[in-house]
Amino acid sequence: MKKITAAIVGAGVMGTATAWPLSDNGHEIRLVGTHLDRDIIQSCKEKNFHPRLKRELPPNVTPYYLEEIETALEGVDFILSGVNSMGAHWIGQTLAPYLKAGDTVIAVTKGLEAEPGGSLLILPEVLRAELPAGLREQVSLAAIGGPCIAGELAGRRQSCVFFGSREIETARWLADIYRTDYYHVQPTSEMVALEVAVALKNAYALGVGLAAGMLKASGGPDTAGAYMHNTAAALFAQGATEIHHILTMLGVDEHFAYGLPGAGDLFVTSRGGRSVTLGQLLGEGKSIQEARAILKGETLEAALVIEQMAVALPKLEARGLLRAQDMPLMHTLIDVVVNAQPLRLDFDAMFSQLG
Amino acid sequence: MKKITAAIVGAGVMGTATAWPLSDNGHEIRLVGTHLDRDIIQSCKEKNFHPRLKRELPPNVTPYYLEEIETALEGVDFILSGVNSMGAHWIGQTLAPYLKAGDTVIAVTKGLEAEPGGSLLILPEVLRAELPAGLREQVSLAAIGGPCIAGELAGRRQSCVFFGSREIETARWLADIYRTDYYHVQPTSEMVALEVAVALKNAYALGVGLAAGMLKASGGPDTAGAYMHNTAAALFAQGATEIHHILTMLGVDEHFAYGLPGAGDLFVTSRGGRSVTLGQLLGEGKSIQEARAILKGETLEAALVIEQMAVALPKLEARGLLRAQDMPLMHTLIDVVVNAQPLRLDFDAMFSQLG
Repeated sequence: MKKITAAIVGAGVMGTATAWPLSDNGHEIRLVGTHLDRDIIQSCKEKNFHPRLKRELPPNVTPYYLEEIETALEGVDFILSGVNSMGAHWIGQTLAPYLKAGDTVIAVTKGLEAEPGGSLLILPEVLRAELPAGLREQVSLAAIGGPCIAGELAGRRQSCVFFGSREIETARWLADIYRTDYYHVQPTSEMVALEVAVALKNAYALGVGLAAGMLKASGGPDTAGAYMHNTAAALFAQGATEIHHILTMLGVDEHFAYGLPGAGDLFVTSRGGRSVTLGQLLGEGKSIQEARAILKGETLEAALVIEQMAVALPKLEARGLLRAQDMPLMHTLIDVVVNAQPLRLDFDAMFSQLG
Repeated sequence: MKKITAAIVGAGVMGTATAWPLSDNGHEIRLVGTHLDRDIIQSCKEKNFHPRLKRELPPNVTPYYLEEIETALEGVDFILSGVNSMGAHWIGQTLAPYLKAGDTVIAVTKGLEAEPGGSLLILPEVLRAELPAGLREQVSLAAIGGPCIAGELAGRRQSCVFFGSREIETARWLADIYRTDYYHVQPTSEMVALEVAVALKNAYALGVGLAAGMLKASGGPDTAGAYMHNTAAALFAQGATEIHHILTMLGVDEHFAYGLPGAGDLFVTSRGGRSVTLGQLLGEGKSIQEARAILKGETLEAALVIEQMAVALPKLEARGLLRAQDMPLMHTLIDVVVNAQPLRLDFDAMFSQLG
């Protein structure tokens, strides 16, 4: 394969982890830190070591500070956006001066934005909207979704993901560049289904985490050793079901609800991380204010998605696109996370869709 | 509510656990052990203590040895079958002499039987086939499915399940008898979708368990702490996807693939137990013979389901009902568990359905 030069902008764990398959395929990688990544880039420049991934960088990776971005983007074949959902506008604004017609940007960012009418905007489209009007439709945007913990990808563990793009050729081209014997990439044109499913999974991982908090509040496993895995599993199933409702409403491929992006990504996200921790705290009975105080300084992707759904859901229901009974778990999450109400799970309102 | 008298036949953990919601609702329960449950019934009679659930029985439960079954079944309103899948024929033969037109039997048993032509028979129908010809269609059969660890139900943890029956009134009647503020029961007429999903989940929980074995074989987490959760999640997603293929093929409600019976039950089953342990051993590289030797004496529900699928799958594919590429993970499980071949996971063959 022709040697490719890629720029990764955002040197957090997920963006940086994608350097491993690129490097293993013989490609050149320029890793650009944001203003939040100065310590990371300094460590990469001085010691060739990524402090959050706790690994030496693979061969062919050159680190750059943000002020060196012009040099870093010079002549690259594509750009990967590694910023988190807080940076979705920033990355569009930052890349805009350097992009030209025919360029390609792929993002690992997970999130959604609610438009005033309730429509859900995926983050690649948020990025697109920050580009000059004449350029917006001249740039190919793509996104990565699926169950992929960054440290495991950098550890070359078997990982399966989708690359989505409106332009399937873009998804296929990028998949061919990235694919290795441990990074299994399926291209898809279903970028909206992919991005919506992986954004919502953060919210529902918080939902699954509630069970561990409820267990703790009840005094932990009882004398016969009973946990609350049944409860967690019911919340998991309701999460997958509500992702399916949203995908169906959007008229996109609802199969993503139980494949890698929906149930698969929810499975891995439920194993731990900030979304689950926030759920545990709320499940214990702490208020959202108390939980935020404990997790101070952490980016709470789950809360960000739930906040957007708090804007969108009433409007989508008012427009008749969703029924009130379709999304009982999301309504509960909105009540607790956005409206700061005490947790009250109504299991009898769930699962009434089936049967 | 009118007080009901129920007989539970099979005093294993799952059947017995259903006595808790019945007892809490004020009903009378007669708990009949099979020939395998003599020690359990002795403990229940002498100490009112179920040794495998590690709990005292709730009020209103009377234990019976198998030879007392005639007395135990006298005048009951319904019978719950608590035997495992090895006992599906036995329970039909055992109950046949005591059943009459209008009687109701609900089963917690999980499994499938392949008919010679490849069709998949759910276990309530296996039970039905053991009844006298004139009685077969005169008895209402129902089944319980969903993520429900027995010890957690007996611990009154929040649990959500479906009761399925061809006769929806039967499912509703039983749901009303069982429903409590911790046991949330949804009636459904989709008994086939329910039973097929919960039977297959044992096979796919073995699939998820492979990842833990592969991790162990690789030397465990690497120096930067990378596990194989990505791998487990990909196997989970493929399992849910293949359950969806089978339900679609059967023309039953494919939504059960991602609700409580499919993804939900797979989630809880993947937390541990014999199916996962068998998967771990095979993932480590042990042969099925070696794994069986280590797990000697255990009923391996996952292996039983995979054996049935080994009979059914080639015939279903030959009949054009499934494509060879629909079920790559099940084919791998058949190769390892039935054909005793070394494990070889082809991740690139998975997920090609979507996109």
